[in-house]
Amino acid sequence: MEEWQLAQGFSYSGIVSKLRNEPNRRDLAVIYSKSPAAAAGVFTQNRVAAAPVHICRERVPSSKIHGIVICSGNANACTGDQGMADARRMTELAANKLGCQPDQFLVCSTGVIGRPLPMAIMEAGIPSAVDRLSADKAGLNDAAHAILTTDTVIKVATRKLMLGQDRICITGFAKGAAMIGPNMATMLGFVMTDASVDPKDLQMILRNSVEHTFNCISVEGHTSTNDTVLILANGRGEPLSGERLQQFAMAVQEVCSELSRGIASDAEGAKHLVIIDVVGTRTDAEAKTVAKTIADSALVKTAIFGADPNWGRVVSAAGYSGVIFEEKDLSLTMGPTLLYERGRPLPFDAKIASAYLRDNRTVHLKLTFTLGEGKCTFYTCDLTDEYVRLNADYTT
Amino acid sequence: MEEWQLAQGFSYSGIVSKLRNEPNRRDLAVIYSKSPAAAAGVFTQNRVAAAPVHICRERVPSSKIHGIVICSGNANACTGDQGMADARRMTELAANKLGCQPDQFLVCSTGVIGRPLPMAIMEAGIPSAVDRLSADKAGLNDAAHAILTTDTVIKVATRKLMLGQDRICITGFAKGAAMIGPNMATMLGFVMTDASVDPKDLQMILRNSVEHTFNCISVEGHTSTNDTVLILANGRGEPLSGERLQQFAMAVQEVCSELSRGIASDAEGAKHLVIIDVVGTRTDAEAKTVAKTIADSALVKTAIFGADPNWGRVVSAAGYSGVIFEEKDLSLTMGPTLLYERGRPLPFDAKIASAYLRDNRTVHLKLTFTLGEGKCTFYTCDLTDEYVRLNADYTT
Repeated sequence: MEEWQLAQGFSYSGIVSKLRNEPNRRDLAVIYSKSPAAAAGVFTQNRVAAAPVHICRERVPSSKIHGIVICSGNANACTGDQGMADARRMTELAANKLGCQPDQFLVCSTGVIGRPLPMAIMEAGIPSAVDRLSADKAGLNDAAHAILTTDTVIKVATRKLMLGQDRICITGFAKGAAMIGPNMATMLGFVMTDASVDPKDLQMILRNSVEHTFNCISVEGHTSTNDTVLILANGRGEPLSGERLQQFAMAVQEVCSELSRGIASDAEGAKHLVIIDVVGTRTDAEAKTVAKTIADSALVKTAIFGADPNWGRVVSAAGYSGVIFEEKDLSLTMGPTLLYERGRPLPFDAKIASAYLRDNRTVHLKLTFTLGEGKCTFYTCDLTDEYVRLNADYTT
Repeated sequence: MEEWQLAQGFSYSGIVSKLRNEPNRRDLAVIYSKSPAAAAGVFTQNRVAAAPVHICRERVPSSKIHGIVICSGNANACTGDQGMADARRMTELAANKLGCQPDQFLVCSTGVIGRPLPMAIMEAGIPSAVDRLSADKAGLNDAAHAILTTDTVIKVATRKLMLGQDRICITGFAKGAAMIGPNMATMLGFVMTDASVDPKDLQMILRNSVEHTFNCISVEGHTSTNDTVLILANGRGEPLSGERLQQFAMAVQEVCSELSRGIASDAEGAKHLVIIDVVGTRTDAEAKTVAKTIADSALVKTAIFGADPNWGRVVSAAGYSGVIFEEKDLSLTMGPTLLYERGRPLPFDAKIASAYLRDNRTVHLKLTFTLGEGKCTFYTCDLTDEYVRLNADYTT
């Protein structure tokens, strides 16, 4: 395990509750802050949100959160009133055991949609997970494992910084969006810091960070019912402001960026990590729209899987993104090769271009527009026959 | 060949020009009307439109069109100024041979993007195709074959109707969107009628028909650079109006509907035709948005391929479609089984639900909302490993 710097005042656990019905698979995590913490959250934009998302939305931003309980294997989504009651009960079980109020706990789930949560397992598991809370790296490691679904490795990132006399630390962990994403590709992220931050500032900082990091990765364009990123800040004393708050915000974005790159890199099923750079649009939002449309194109993704330099599919996907441009406004580079320049196709050696796709696990597409200063970097993967096989029989 | 009723005054040909480099594959078609015809067109909404699309847009609506020349195997898209010159030259070659003006001809192409059109083949092929023009069914059959790419069968539809004393006929043919769509899933459709219709009315009727037919099928959500539907009406005398015009419009929509169902049914690679019925949204447009989002979800389409009744993916796709609703507004039926009722999951037998998907080539998903009277029927297919294989190495 690499050397992690941990935010102070937090403890963690991750246990085998048997929710997943796999003998040695950790599937239930608790995060706990002894002091009440400021908390903020960013959630899925899906109209069909899982029960835990509804509960979290009710409870953040807040200045009094003590922790988060997370289960993997069941999404508790499309589960109606019972699902809401079950999610509330999960927070109650953690809070009762720790001597705080249920509404001082947050809750997340990831897994299959539309199945009732087996509450007997939660009734036994959550108190047991609380018993194992640990402030050391082993505890964090267990929690980071317990939230995984199809991920092959844990994703942890940490930053420390000096703000005047104060040393503060930001510790995060996350799960993917593993590229074959049978679990609805749900993304969960948790960021803990010992800084003192006003809840409103924390919410703004988290939203901005997510926009530039977790919202710039895509698997197949299917927005999960459960996507959640939460941040807890348990520092005491005067909340950060001015220059210090900005330094803190930058560090939070760095942690989120490292976690999201970790998710995009852990591409099960996928054979390529695809980095899509779009520059020169009118706005950053336009660049992101173009990049996401390309990232979601099955035709682009199968071509990259097959090492087929079929660049017309990329230009065509940009064309139906909804962003207004003329063909002469656009040039396209695939790796080292300029293929399309201001609306004109350039002659190229198809064998060399194909070899670039075949021989590199990470491939770059760069689209350059002549419309302005907008830009975006987006991460996705290719679409493989393994993706189809793995997703074709997930629940049965 | 089934008994077709043909619109009067049109002739057709489809020849082997060797554009496709396959010895017996027809790849160049000409449609010709001896009388100048009213013409209208509906085109791709992709910002990157192929050269022939630009040419057609310049020339319709019109009251003086004599014909259409169509090649398959090369899209003439992303080909810059040379592509525009080549598309114009195609119309000139047909017009010169037939003694009319170049701008009295329209042009379409379908195939690989970004490759210059081999004009030597067109210079020889187009006059030769004109030489073969024939007003009988064999000519239409040849033309319908020459426009195909990955389609396995031709799609032809015809309607005759009596408007007062006048017998009129509407004849159409089309190519897919064959479900594996390596050719950018380009859809081309041609409708010929011997009715007399004002060009403006013709344009309005065609746009409305396409919206309810060709725009309600989807393969992988990738809007082609070349999609085109053209209609020619070569009747003389007083243009249709009032009740007669409405009867005519209905018949045009029927022809388009039959052609679009033909495209959706000719699903190479695909193992299932999926019919998505959405009812009870506020507007028809909302219903279509929900249906198209589900039709474009790789997770839904792989689940159907695998006979996995993973209905949460369908509900979740509705949730991120952008249409505003609450979970309690939605119920979902898969074939005969109600799975989700007003926000609550219902118990069901997974084996029976899986058998429904496995044993039927055509499967139905019905989403019922409680918001209004909006509705839409949409056609798509499943996502198979064969789709990935066929699309992974198309150009190389």
